[in-house]
Amino acid sequence: MSVEQSARSAASSLPRSVRVREVGPRDGFQNEPEVIATADKLRLIELLLASGIERLELTSFVRPDVIPQLADAAELLDSVRRPEGRDCSFSVLVPNPRGLERALQHLPNFDEISVFLSASETHNRHNVNRSIAESLAGLEKTINDARAAGLRCEGVIATSFGCPYEGRVEPERVFEIAAALVEFGCVEIGFGDTTGMANPLQVGGFYRAAFERFGGAEIELTAHFHNTRGQGLANVLAALGAGVCSFESSFGELGGCPVPAGSTGNVASEDLVSMLHEMGIETGIDLDALLVASRAVEATLGRRLGAHLLRAGPVEWQHR
Amino acid sequence: MSVEQSARSAASSLPRSVRVREVGPRDGFQNEPEVIATADKLRLIELLLASGIERLELTSFVRPDVIPQLADAAELLDSVRRPEGRDCSFSVLVPNPRGLERALQHLPNFDEISVFLSASETHNRHNVNRSIAESLAGLEKTINDARAAGLRCEGVIATSFGCPYEGRVEPERVFEIAAALVEFGCVEIGFGDTTGMANPLQVGGFYRAAFERFGGAEIELTAHFHNTRGQGLANVLAALGAGVCSFESSFGELGGCPVPAGSTGNVASEDLVSMLHEMGIETGIDLDALLVASRAVEATLGRRLGAHLLRAGPVEWQHR
Repeated sequence: MSVEQSARSAASSLPRSVRVREVGPRDGFQNEPEVIATADKLRLIELLLASGIERLELTSFVRPDVIPQLADAAELLDSVRRPEGRDCSFSVLVPNPRGLERALQHLPNFDEISVFLSASETHNRHNVNRSIAESLAGLEKTINDARAAGLRCEGVIATSFGCPYEGRVEPERVFEIAAALVEFGCVEIGFGDTTGMANPLQVGGFYRAAFERFGGAEIELTAHFHNTRGQGLANVLAALGAGVCSFESSFGELGGCPVPAGSTGNVASEDLVSMLHEMGIETGIDLDALLVASRAVEATLGRRLGAHLLRAGPVEWQHR
Repeated sequence: MSVEQSARSAASSLPRSVRVREVGPRDGFQNEPEVIATADKLRLIELLLASGIERLELTSFVRPDVIPQLADAAELLDSVRRPEGRDCSFSVLVPNPRGLERALQHLPNFDEISVFLSASETHNRHNVNRSIAESLAGLEKTINDARAAGLRCEGVIATSFGCPYEGRVEPERVFEIAAALVEFGCVEIGFGDTTGMANPLQVGGFYRAAFERFGGAEIELTAHFHNTRGQGLANVLAALGAGVCSFESSFGELGGCPVPAGSTGNVASEDLVSMLHEMGIETGIDLDALLVASRAVEATLGRRLGAHLLRAGPVEWQHR
């Protein structure tokens, strides 16, 4: 078997295209120490949209006294402009029925919501001060109301691959929570590696089992990895091999739970897109244009960000 | 199929243990802007050895006026102490017959040599000012002389996965060079991704083809990846899947051709070992002890290094 044949045979088991949801404007900006001006956010979102991104998490309706970084959610939603001539799905993270109520006042300026809870009791308690059962009860109402308003719903399960308080999390427990979210009406489940504890072997087994359990129900299974231990793209590779076609990432490598302190954040969108394109997997994103947005957010924040492509540039730049 | 069964089935196609050669004291220290004091080097090497590392590239006999960072090769080789009670193979990078002559005066203080050339004419010309044919002719003598002295020989082929000047490099061309090195007497071939241009799909196809070509000859095929575009560990994962059991890496993420400027270096040893251990693949290395060495080199160099584990720590630290 030649190298080419071998690569073709390996490629045939990978998806030909994947969806990438850029979550930097929510997950990234929320975790910044300083509040970013709304005008800067809008400019950066416009640059992201210019790259052809088709899914964008814009903001979250959380309590402004708790997360001042996203206190401008209403203003931002009212000001953001949809790209012309193509579809782009805007999503908003919603923590509870009250957050949804606030969000609904800005329809039709977004298309989907994400709701979230943790797969481990301790992390959920730390994060939202509720048991998982209490969270699920609240989310049922949120999802029902969102669907009644015509919104698509993603359910995000934090600490799906491990919890900093409890250690390993049983996949069966994660799947039970996912099944409840699906029953409530979520058509997409995002499994989050909140503190970067996943390894590729685990990821492959997890998603193969998840597809067996949810694959028939036409539920989209999304991967949300952090690069905390440098394994972000290795986990993406393992997920691709298990059939995952939907990823969440942040430009610049922003975001992510900064635990332990100093850790890197979400998988960087530009590093993700670069790897996917090099592997012949389409994303619909123009990498050069995405890097314009990344350099702009780096300039806005005034510090060196973690995304490798910001330093190295795409492979093809080396021999242009 | 349960998650556990699925993970077990995936694991069964991976090696149960791999060899890791730490190349930081050569590849890393050589690429530092400042010359590191020999006493510091010896202290750091001692810490590396305390982690149980079984393969260590110590230094190189290159021209001291060209690479002052390694001008202390003779003193270092005479001073380094072998770990007690266990084997550790010391290697020395040798550029040419004259370098070997200098190295041989320090036997039996090392066990193997690495010789190198590039797979692309332009890179080889830039690096050693010779054609590939001229390099091979010189290496034939070097390898012969080294073997006559009882030394094991590794041949390292730079730009095996792409060249910053020429772009993609044909695997067949790389294999031809590898075949010549094997004919001269190399029992190990290291394929180097010198400027981090490899992607996992390419890596998988490359190594599967390489094993078909060289697998029968009991030649060890080693992977030397750089994390230039954040794909280092994804490439490791692809290599593992293709059967690679031998890797080279640098503690702290030191080393690597810093092209483009600001790029990160070799795959970080601690990030590599962390991922391997999490996947149940043995390395013989104590990760906690390796991190002691990494923190020491970070303190010695006085700047924040790229290895993720230096910030995040091993997964199990999160829930101790």
